[in-house]
Amino acid sequence: MELLITYDVDTTTPAGQRRLRRVAKACEGMGHRVQKSVFEVVCEPAQRVQLEADLARIIDTNLDSIRVYQLDRGTFGAAQHLGAAVRPPHHGPLIV
Amino acid sequence: MELLITYDVDTTTPAGQRRLRRVAKACEGMGHRVQKSVFEVVCEPAQRVQLEADLARIIDTNLDSIRVYQLDRGTFGAAQHLGAAVRPPHHGPLIV
Repeated sequence: MELLITYDVDTTTPAGQRRLRRVAKACEGMGHRVQKSVFEVVCEPAQRVQLEADLARIIDTNLDSIRVYQLDRGTFGAAQHLGAAVRPPHHGPLIV
Repeated sequence: MELLITYDVDTTTPAGQRRLRRVAKACEGMGHRVQKSVFEVVCEPAQRVQLEADLARIIDTNLDSIRVYQLDRGTFGAAQHLGAAVRPPHHGPLIV
C-alpha cells in the first residue's frame, strides 16, 4: 500500500524538537521524505499498523498531529510537483 | 476532484515569510487547512489549473516546493488521524 504521511509537531520546546526527530526517524525507516514534514511510504498493512502505533507513542496528542492518507498505487508518481523538491523513486531497484 | 497540497517554503528571510503567507492564502481560498503546510482541496479541474498557476508564480522554485496529489473521492474522509488536528468537513452543508 502507498501511504502519504504528513505531520505537524510543536517544536517550540526541546521536548517537541525531540519528538520531531523521533517522528522523522520512524518515517525514514519506512519511506522517502519528499518535504520537511511529508513522507511517501510504500509498505504492507502490518507495517502500517506498526508505524502508526510507533507514531502514536511518540507524539504529544495535545500538541502534535499526524495524518496518514492511503493512496491508490501510482498516486505518488502522478503527483504534480512545483519547485525545489525532488521526486523520489519507489518501485525501482534499490542500488547499494 | 480531491487534491492534497503540501508545501515547504523557505522562511529564513522576510521574502520567504511573505511567500509562505501568499501560498497559504491561495490555498485557503480553495480548501481546508488540516496542518500548517497541508491543505485538502475539493475543486474542479479548471480551478486546479488556476491554483497551480498561482502557486507557481508565488514560490521561489529554487528554495520552495509544492506537491499536489490527486486523490480518489473519499480519501480525505478515510485518512487516519493521530493527535491534535481536526478533521474538516468537505461535502457537508455549508452553514453561514
